Amino acid sequence: MFARIDHVGVAVEDLDAAIALYETTYGMALVHRETVTEQGVEAVLLDVGENHVELLAPLGPDTPVGKFLAKKGPGMHHVAYQVADIDATLEALKAAGTRLIDETPRIGIRGSRVAFLHPAATGGVLTEIVEPAHGPQ
Amino acid sequence: MFARIDHVGVAVEDLDAAIALYETTYGMALVHRETVTEQGVEAVLLDVGENHVELLAPLGPDTPVGKFLAKKGPGMHHVAYQVADIDATLEALKAAGTRLIDETPRIGIRGSRVAFLHPAATGGVLTEIVEPAHGPQ
Repeated sequence: MFARIDHVGVAVEDLDAAIALYETTYGMALVHRETVTEQGVEAVLLDVGENHVELLAPLGPDTPVGKFLAKKGPGMHHVAYQVADIDATLEALKAAGTRLIDETPRIGIRGSRVAFLHPAATGGVLTEIVEPAHGPQ
Repeated sequence: MFARIDHVGVAVEDLDAAIALYETTYGMALVHRETVTEQGVEAVLLDVGENHVELLAPLGPDTPVGKFLAKKGPGMHHVAYQVADIDATLEALKAAGTRLIDETPRIGIRGSRVAFLHPAATGGVLTEIVEPAHGPQ
């Protein structure tokens, strides 16, 4: 069902400091940067092998990531698994009785299609599935 | 420096329920199960592509994962990156001034060599590096 880990999402307070850590200290290549106004977030994607790290900085305190930071502080926010066909995966998850945040896919960064599963159904792990825009990348 | 995400570590209260979720609902293959008495944990490894999910159940409340669960509840515990040479990686991290939990590698599950970076140095993300026992696997 899941092809690989697509990325680990990390909530950060200071995006420049986080980029310095992942790019300079860890040696990951920064491959994408996008502000998603409707999600209230600035997202930065770095490559680590076939996987990615997604740094998430809130555009304000009254956003999902802003509220996460206020409650839990900076740290791991979610894990995303790559799928070849997100529609089929969502149908299979629904058939298995899995509670979803997104019943239908929405557009993620880099033109991907994404959906979040509900943490109540995933042992407290905010879990995303991602169908990349141009197949596995 | 980092070859890929080796695994995401997930703290769980009910190991059988977590295995059912990852194995049956998500379709991941359970490839390893190990009790690490000195870490106070029962660990289960599942494959997802070249990556893994590591489920961590505490052997008691007075263990690191037991304390994590009491404080934060079940959910993501750490992320681990695969490296080819953990000694060289630790030297490079030390040279960059990165604060470490493990100054020298210790033995992880499946005979791997592992070390943890300090969350204070990693933006709140408990970060592990892993040199697999027999090269990337």
